[in-house]
Amino acid sequence: MREFFARHKEDLTRFMNEYLSTSSCHKLKVRPFGRDICREIASFSEKGKMIRGGLVALGHYFKGTRGTQDVLKVGTALEIMHSALLIHDDLMDRDLRRRGADSFHQRYRNLAHAQRLKDPDHFGDGMAICGGDIAFFMAMDLLGTLECDQGIRQRIWNLCSREMAYVGTAQMVDLYLGASEEVFDEATILELYRYKTGRYTFSLPLISGLLLAELDEDMVNAVDRIGEKLGIVFQIKDDELGLFGDEQQTGKPVGSDVREGKKTLYILHLYNRAGPEARSTLSHIIGNPAATMDDVVYVRDMIEKLGIRQELERRVGSMSEEARKMVAGLDMANEDAGRILLELIDYNSSRLK
Amino acid sequence: MREFFARHKEDLTRFMNEYLSTSSCHKLKVRPFGRDICREIASFSEKGKMIRGGLVALGHYFKGTRGTQDVLKVGTALEIMHSALLIHDDLMDRDLRRRGADSFHQRYRNLAHAQRLKDPDHFGDGMAICGGDIAFFMAMDLLGTLECDQGIRQRIWNLCSREMAYVGTAQMVDLYLGASEEVFDEATILELYRYKTGRYTFSLPLISGLLLAELDEDMVNAVDRIGEKLGIVFQIKDDELGLFGDEQQTGKPVGSDVREGKKTLYILHLYNRAGPEARSTLSHIIGNPAATMDDVVYVRDMIEKLGIRQELERRVGSMSEEARKMVAGLDMANEDAGRILLELIDYNSSRLK
Repeated sequence: MREFFARHKEDLTRFMNEYLSTSSCHKLKVRPFGRDICREIASFSEKGKMIRGGLVALGHYFKGTRGTQDVLKVGTALEIMHSALLIHDDLMDRDLRRRGADSFHQRYRNLAHAQRLKDPDHFGDGMAICGGDIAFFMAMDLLGTLECDQGIRQRIWNLCSREMAYVGTAQMVDLYLGASEEVFDEATILELYRYKTGRYTFSLPLISGLLLAELDEDMVNAVDRIGEKLGIVFQIKDDELGLFGDEQQTGKPVGSDVREGKKTLYILHLYNRAGPEARSTLSHIIGNPAATMDDVVYVRDMIEKLGIRQELERRVGSMSEEARKMVAGLDMANEDAGRILLELIDYNSSRLK
Repeated sequence: MREFFARHKEDLTRFMNEYLSTSSCHKLKVRPFGRDICREIASFSEKGKMIRGGLVALGHYFKGTRGTQDVLKVGTALEIMHSALLIHDDLMDRDLRRRGADSFHQRYRNLAHAQRLKDPDHFGDGMAICGGDIAFFMAMDLLGTLECDQGIRQRIWNLCSREMAYVGTAQMVDLYLGASEEVFDEATILELYRYKTGRYTFSLPLISGLLLAELDEDMVNAVDRIGEKLGIVFQIKDDELGLFGDEQQTGKPVGSDVREGKKTLYILHLYNRAGPEARSTLSHIIGNPAATMDDVVYVRDMIEKLGIRQELERRVGSMSEEARKMVAGLDMANEDAGRILLELIDYNSSRLK
């Protein structure tokens, strides 16, 4: 699996750099921002694991034939869209670090300080809104050049547009829950995980690859469901890493979700199980941008003490097991692709970054 | 002309409402935000003049045949994209009013206050980032369903993606010039006008209509250039209305560009011609969010006194005359479409809202 994704990351990086450095936006002469944004997107994307791009290739590999140029195009487009989402997300979540470096808006805030521009924070934030928008459209532009059958091309366009609209809608719910005191339930959180991360991270790229390989609808539907399972596990692990992870490995500050008041399964169960006194302490920590590392450690300790971490690990385990069974039920032409998918399920439930 | 655009606005409004209220995003069950955002986009778009949507129909009408469903689809998609741009723009420009109502982020700030959510401004801003993103994707989703020849469909998809990426890049330049003390020149401002407003407001919709009508490349290229001329005039008038317009008619507060420090042709010439003393006064007004109405009136009076308003009116006049000549040179199958385009050129250079 590692070798498969590493190889595809190389191909994707090469293709993305070539695409971005010759794109119409790069050539736009109104000041150097067109060129800059293309470079920023490329270097920002390279720092990621490029799982989504690799999954398009994996979906296509189900058929066992060699990957096409279209596989690279869709993979690159999804990676660029993912970068765009992260740029906008970090702004909304006030995250100053991403992928081991300053987040996109923070980089432009720095530039504004260095050049003594007016209102550096507002400038940086505006540049990040534009940067994300531009990246979305450059991804769409690339999808417009697919050479496959027109029906498949159109279906991939609609799939991508819809899944991205779902991500935005789920992000609205996330913002709302983060800002309100409203009692929320597990079903809502799971729906959020499904639409905000799960589907666009796993289902969308895998299905796109299957469609490019012209595999049948039964396969597409089955893989769609496997993708959702993987996605929910991915998000639970993401929340876990945000609490218990190693910043050096994740590239994101531990505790930022706590400070932002993000409503995760961990936080839900914590509120449900904590006694009245602890709950009152928690309410001063969760959603408090000034929460200290000690505060975050308090939250972590409570999560461990109340057995929540173990319980969610168990659920991650059983969901992964269900996904494994679903993979076993697939009618695969290429056993090697099945093996990689199974390895991915294991990696996904135990990853440290 | 008025009748043509009014009729098409009716058709577009009907089509947009139907599209948005049955879209996949509207049906998304994670809380009511999917439904809400669809309603917001529809009601926000209805308040506009829907010029862009009407121009797709006008471009198609060049051939003289009846409009197709695809004309409505592209028109609606461009109107939704325009709404998305305004949502993000108002956030970047800190405009609290738009189309005679609270701007999109301001509406969600109000909701946050009413529901006592945490950090209402941050919440409203985040919702506007998501709202714009969702609208972009819903527009692309609609473009993905065109029923025309696949080559034309693909070309329109790429045209839209590229022009929108240009708008974002030009907006970056706009933000930069607004925040820096850098000396800027007329050529930069004109490039900005071209890519930030001109092309996507006129060239893009007109060309899309011509492509749907399967008109030839010579026509497409000529209309592209006419669209740019119209677009630059449109932006100069927009700047003028932002200074001298009637808020009741424009729906936008007079002087907000001055407070935001927007670098327009008016401001460029003002800086170039003002004496040292006036320049020092101006530097305390332009880009000062706390500038009073008296300050704005001072800027306006200087612009009138130095003959800048008249000069720019003259240039608007001569650019419109060039556009008229270009229209006369078109080999039109349908004279009525030519008449409407000429009327539009007149309206564009004299509009009050």
